[in-house]
Amino acid sequence: MRSSLRIIPPIALLAAAALSADEGMWTFDNPPTKLIQQKYNFTLTQQWLDHVRFSSARLNDGGSGSFVSAHGLLLTNHHVARGQLQKSSTPEHDYIKNGFYASDYSQEMKAPDLEVNVLMSFENVTTRVQAAAKGAASPEAQFQAKQKIIADIERESLEKTKLRSDVVTLYQGGEYWLYRYKKYTDARIVFAPEQQAAFFGGDPDNFTYPRYDLDMALFRIYENGKPIDTPNYLKWNSKGAADGELVFVSGHPGSTSRLDTMAQLEFERDVVLPIQLRLLNDRLQVLRRFSASSEEHARQASSRIFGLENSLKAFKGELQGLQDKHTMDTKSADEERFQTAVNNKAELKAKFGNAWKEIAEATRKSQTRIKEQFFHSMDSELGTKAVQIVQWVAEVKKPDGDRLPGYHDAQLESMKFEMLSPAPVYRDLEIARMTGALELDLKELGPNEPFLKALLGGKTPAAFAKEMIGGTKLDDPKVRKALLDGGEAAVNASTDPLIVIARRVDPMRREQIKWFQTNVESIEERAGEQLGQARFAVYGKNAYPDATFTLRLSYGTVKGYPMNGTIAPPITTFYGLYDRAASFGGKGDFELMPRWQKGKTTLDLATPFNFVTTNDIIGGNSGSPVINKAGEIVGLVFDGNIESLVGDYVFDIETNRTVAVHTAGMTEALKKLYNADRLLSEVLGK
Amino acid sequence: MRSSLRIIPPIALLAAAALSADEGMWTFDNPPTKLIQQKYNFTLTQQWLDHVRFSSARLNDGGSGSFVSAHGLLLTNHHVARGQLQKSSTPEHDYIKNGFYASDYSQEMKAPDLEVNVLMSFENVTTRVQAAAKGAASPEAQFQAKQKIIADIERESLEKTKLRSDVVTLYQGGEYWLYRYKKYTDARIVFAPEQQAAFFGGDPDNFTYPRYDLDMALFRIYENGKPIDTPNYLKWNSKGAADGELVFVSGHPGSTSRLDTMAQLEFERDVVLPIQLRLLNDRLQVLRRFSASSEEHARQASSRIFGLENSLKAFKGELQGLQDKHTMDTKSADEERFQTAVNNKAELKAKFGNAWKEIAEATRKSQTRIKEQFFHSMDSELGTKAVQIVQWVAEVKKPDGDRLPGYHDAQLESMKFEMLSPAPVYRDLEIARMTGALELDLKELGPNEPFLKALLGGKTPAAFAKEMIGGTKLDDPKVRKALLDGGEAAVNASTDPLIVIARRVDPMRREQIKWFQTNVESIEERAGEQLGQARFAVYGKNAYPDATFTLRLSYGTVKGYPMNGTIAPPITTFYGLYDRAASFGGKGDFELMPRWQKGKTTLDLATPFNFVTTNDIIGGNSGSPVINKAGEIVGLVFDGNIESLVGDYVFDIETNRTVAVHTAGMTEALKKLYNADRLLSEVLGK
Repeated sequence: MRSSLRIIPPIALLAAAALSADEGMWTFDNPPTKLIQQKYNFTLTQQWLDHVRFSSARLNDGGSGSFVSAHGLLLTNHHVARGQLQKSSTPEHDYIKNGFYASDYSQEMKAPDLEVNVLMSFENVTTRVQAAAKGAASPEAQFQAKQKIIADIERESLEKTKLRSDVVTLYQGGEYWLYRYKKYTDARIVFAPEQQAAFFGGDPDNFTYPRYDLDMALFRIYENGKPIDTPNYLKWNSKGAADGELVFVSGHPGSTSRLDTMAQLEFERDVVLPIQLRLLNDRLQVLRRFSASSEEHARQASSRIFGLENSLKAFKGELQGLQDKHTMDTKSADEERFQTAVNNKAELKAKFGNAWKEIAEATRKSQTRIKEQFFHSMDSELGTKAVQIVQWVAEVKKPDGDRLPGYHDAQLESMKFEMLSPAPVYRDLEIARMTGALELDLKELGPNEPFLKALLGGKTPAAFAKEMIGGTKLDDPKVRKALLDGGEAAVNASTDPLIVIARRVDPMRREQIKWFQTNVESIEERAGEQLGQARFAVYGKNAYPDATFTLRLSYGTVKGYPMNGTIAPPITTFYGLYDRAASFGGKGDFELMPRWQKGKTTLDLATPFNFVTTNDIIGGNSGSPVINKAGEIVGLVFDGNIESLVGDYVFDIETNRTVAVHTAGMTEALKKLYNADRLLSEVLGK
Repeated sequence: MRSSLRIIPPIALLAAAALSADEGMWTFDNPPTKLIQQKYNFTLTQQWLDHVRFSSARLNDGGSGSFVSAHGLLLTNHHVARGQLQKSSTPEHDYIKNGFYASDYSQEMKAPDLEVNVLMSFENVTTRVQAAAKGAASPEAQFQAKQKIIADIERESLEKTKLRSDVVTLYQGGEYWLYRYKKYTDARIVFAPEQQAAFFGGDPDNFTYPRYDLDMALFRIYENGKPIDTPNYLKWNSKGAADGELVFVSGHPGSTSRLDTMAQLEFERDVVLPIQLRLLNDRLQVLRRFSASSEEHARQASSRIFGLENSLKAFKGELQGLQDKHTMDTKSADEERFQTAVNNKAELKAKFGNAWKEIAEATRKSQTRIKEQFFHSMDSELGTKAVQIVQWVAEVKKPDGDRLPGYHDAQLESMKFEMLSPAPVYRDLEIARMTGALELDLKELGPNEPFLKALLGGKTPAAFAKEMIGGTKLDDPKVRKALLDGGEAAVNASTDPLIVIARRVDPMRREQIKWFQTNVESIEERAGEQLGQARFAVYGKNAYPDATFTLRLSYGTVKGYPMNGTIAPPITTFYGLYDRAASFGGKGDFELMPRWQKGKTTLDLATPFNFVTTNDIIGGNSGSPVINKAGEIVGLVFDGNIESLVGDYVFDIETNRTVAVHTAGMTEALKKLYNADRLLSEVLGK
């Protein structure tokens, strides 16, 4: 499933020359109108684009969604809603295991800490950002100047419009845009099926196809205690998508690295991904051991295990992609062509010709300290919050432009919403995670590494974690709020063990952040920006920028593909669910929920259930609507197939597929299995 | 599907040291009793082995089968029976399209030219064969001496026992065995489903899994106009195989090249397979064009198209296997180890050390004329028969030991049965095939190639084919019989255009056969025998020989496998058939037969339909029974998965799987869809 969101500095831009059919995650200011007109004889109108944009939402847990009624009903994936379901669950009410259905408005259940954004406007601020950075003496000065102007632009916009205002770097710094979002923080859970129905096939089937998952959930957005009006919503087309049909996906792809340089790809392949795989494997083992100790522990850890398995499978696929000779040869040939084009023009060569070398040097430098970025972790909710509290009180005193990334005025409100979340914290789980993470840190960096020495102060990870989590009061949101409100004085006076330890290592963390800014990020950012401009110069702007968890439009068709010697079908049906369950004896990941067992005879088993399209998506697109030409919803994106895992780096229309739940399948299940007549009436406008 | 049978000289032998779990196609004189005892704690008794052997049959169309009742009822695959169904069909009765069911004995329909063999005894004749070849002056003299002694042994045995008697070369010539078969030539068709039910999913799903095919057919064996008694038959277990169960396959794998030398594998990869793929692709195009011209033409060509598509997919898979670096590295490392072991012992080195070099030289030599073996073809039933008639009358005059391979006394009866087959010959199809083949021959060899010049005599392929097929009377079996009976005089006097032309090029064909014997086959055979003996010396005889279309036993368990990012299930169900049909809109290869559409509600859809096992099989095993410990039939082998196509060269238990029809599925379909109560009663012993 696609949702694990990894933010990578967007320093890549795609060559128009190399565009595959249906490729691209396009910004709404530069939609692929011409390409769609040519290939599909369909015209994207401004009205269509606006309708789709206002119907689309970003869920800041790391996914996408869309409004499907005039009363704020928001459709997304079960696996995007999963975190909120987990946080709402208790030993008595396990909404992950059993699902949730609000039979009327009063039953709709507030999600603990979900922020939802709708993109209201966007504005090109490239000139202002680039002007501010002009003439800076060093890459780092340039970096700082840009950070400052961006903070200014965001703050001014927030003050003026009251809308969440983010400056987004596109085309590797070729452009900067101010995105303004309407922000909602009162999302209520309306419907979620049982996890086993949403995620039938479990980790084995994750990122694969054919699939049979009801990976859907419904929220309703409230403001001032009332459902919001959403005049722009996607009409529910219960016939759903047909084989060969032109369809669109409007959502928030998290990040891609399609035009990283070869040096960066090799660094990713040889250094970063192997580290990440080791780390994820270890985290997973820790949690599996924890889960095995009791049923309640298993419940507490289940969402994290889900997330780790998901990331592990995704990263393995990415690594395989980078280890594929054909992929790397293609990338290498692309880079050579681009380099030759730059070097063949004296003016371009002088301005941009050095960028590849600078990036290669920065990655080499990065490698000397890269492990610190992964193995200085206490891997716990409260440990993370302690670090944030200590940083927060120091940063907010400074002029906005001088602060650490994340602590600018325009960002504080969303961050605070998260930091003060009332979601439950499980101390046993916290101790298990922190112990496991520190044991891995020691294994990777050794017992004499200065940061770990300072952190642990001679204690074993287990003793340390027990002392920290046993002694802290940070699990109480009121305690966290008091510290934030009390500022540096309160934090300095705190004897909470987690705050004490976060204070102790704070200078070392700051040195680390600074070192990477100076030696890696600022270099890569400047060189990346040069490459972005070089691409404009060589190829023009007939292209899409790498994904940045901002709203994008992709287009494609419902279409099967060659798979393992045969053809994967465009669409699956309920029959296939019952086949796969029976094939595995209804055990484990292939267990049938009692509701599905009992309701089998009421279903039309030939109803389309899941389907695949050629749309170009990536993690973060989970929960995006699949939209037809009429602007109606015909499906719900929930995954990419295994062949798409290399999509972080390259798009191959032959086999790369978006996997979605079909609206016909959702309609049939809601009606016959979940008796969700209230919701069906609402989406069907009855 | 596995049935395309390609006879490759068996010059390979497997190292016991390198055996994977469950690997091997074992002869019944050397069953893997100890391995099975160790791994599965089950003892193969002689009684069990005899029961299985006498219940197993070879179908000389290129497949396997087993007796499933005491009255000669023989179960095999639809795709093995397909050729006979095709030959029995007419424009009025298309048994391929509509299937066939004999509601009583009198309806059972004689197959035109199917010979069925049951292995009655086997005897080690190595000493006699090797003694005869000892002291021969050259590889060719050795080759001739062996041919002669083998012909003697076969003839003596036939005369003495009246059983079909074949000397089989095993372990690359490390051993020679005399196999005696009871031979049946009156096989009658009892049941076959519609082709679309037997081969649901068509060419796309061929060689893949999950699968949903009722790939079964039933013959009954007659002698003297009466069904034979088969006291040894496999009891029908309608519960069928269960996940994890130990199962056996008894059948006739055609050929493998598991221990070809690297020189041979590279020759196969770089020379032979590319030629075969070009040839098959071209043949297929020719037949597709022919099929498109009328419905009746499509009916006539359908079995050949099926066979060509099957071979094409298989060879593509084999080529991919040989192009896989990991596979070739493994093979190369094996060879190095073996070579080192030989070279480290002076005695072995002196006797066998040169063999690899000799084989490499022979393949190089072979390459200079290899294309003649593929592109001197008239690709037609009658063209082939004309060549055989001309050769036959010249060969049978000679002393048995001096004849061309295939024309020895012990072989004549089976060959004559085939040559005089009453199966219909379609002149339009013959002309299309001959024209297409000759056009390809010219393209590959050029218009000045001596053989083609002599053959065509300046005519275009189209004109030549029309003249030949238009003018010949060889389509009448009586005409063919008269020529065989009339001997050289009759053949020399014949003015039949195909006989005239076959006479004209006969000397060139003989020169070609002789050249390959002298320069390639005799060298490879001697060197292969040396390697066979060297393997015995280095590794002992705890191994199985390469496949030779003789009876073999393999063992394994019912087991899913990792597939394309997820897990393929051990078993599929009828649900899956209906899913796949609905997924593709019930079109083309995924059409549902009316009987299956109508009968859907009567079926228990959760019934196991197809399943996979770890047994080691290869083309020729099609139609083999899957047998449980009790010696009952629990399934019917019909295919290998796509991952097994490299099985010609290497067996990988991780993903190599046998694909079989489940007896529960066959029982359910026979009962509910085909109302074949008579047959069910018979196999269930009611």
